[in-house]
Amino acid sequence: MRVKSKIWLETEDQKIIFSDGRRDLLRAIEELGSIHRAAQQMGMSYRAAWGKIKASEERLGFHLVATSAGGPRGGGAVLTEEGRSFLDKYEKFKAEANTAVDALFRSHFPDGRP
Amino acid sequence: MRVKSKIWLETEDQKIIFSDGRRDLLRAIEELGSIHRAAQQMGMSYRAAWGKIKASEERLGFHLVATSAGGPRGGGAVLTEEGRSFLDKYEKFKAEANTAVDALFRSHFPDGRP
Repeated sequence: MRVKSKIWLETEDQKIIFSDGRRDLLRAIEELGSIHRAAQQMGMSYRAAWGKIKASEERLGFHLVATSAGGPRGGGAVLTEEGRSFLDKYEKFKAEANTAVDALFRSHFPDGRP
Repeated sequence: MRVKSKIWLETEDQKIIFSDGRRDLLRAIEELGSIHRAAQQMGMSYRAAWGKIKASEERLGFHLVATSAGGPRGGGAVLTEEGRSFLDKYEKFKAEANTAVDALFRSHFPDGRP
């Protein structure tokens, strides 16, 4: 028996502000330097990826991704400083939350059995 | 900005052992004394409710619900002692986990803003 959890941030009216899915998308953009390639890697359309980023940015109140147009390889995308800093904060929170949930699971179910 | 979480118990091969949905179903059975009426209240079929209970029982290794057939009002259903005790344990764990996640959220996002 093991514990699983999904933890995310949302608005008062239950719209996703940020989640592990969006974290993965931003990490892919950081790695690949392109929303298009990040979307491909995540198995979603460019339009869907862009929509998620825009929605998070609107709800957070700052830009997560900065894009540059043109150049021989097409436009590129990088995380903004605020985006990177928010992402770090989110990941620290998530890691501590997962650790806490795992520890509580072990304290209530010490041998992993019901 | 607020934190939301879903926490559940599963097997190594990712099958649900117990979740808030099943807790609600068992609580409804406890309240209504009938799987049929509990299923109705939860907006699911009797077959679906029964299937979930059976799956949890199989994965837990004990019975959660005891049924009695016949009588003027049809068969009834009650929680077994093991079922009730497991449910209490699950709810204590869940309450503490939610409290811990909320506290960590407040420590990382003290003013509830990103």
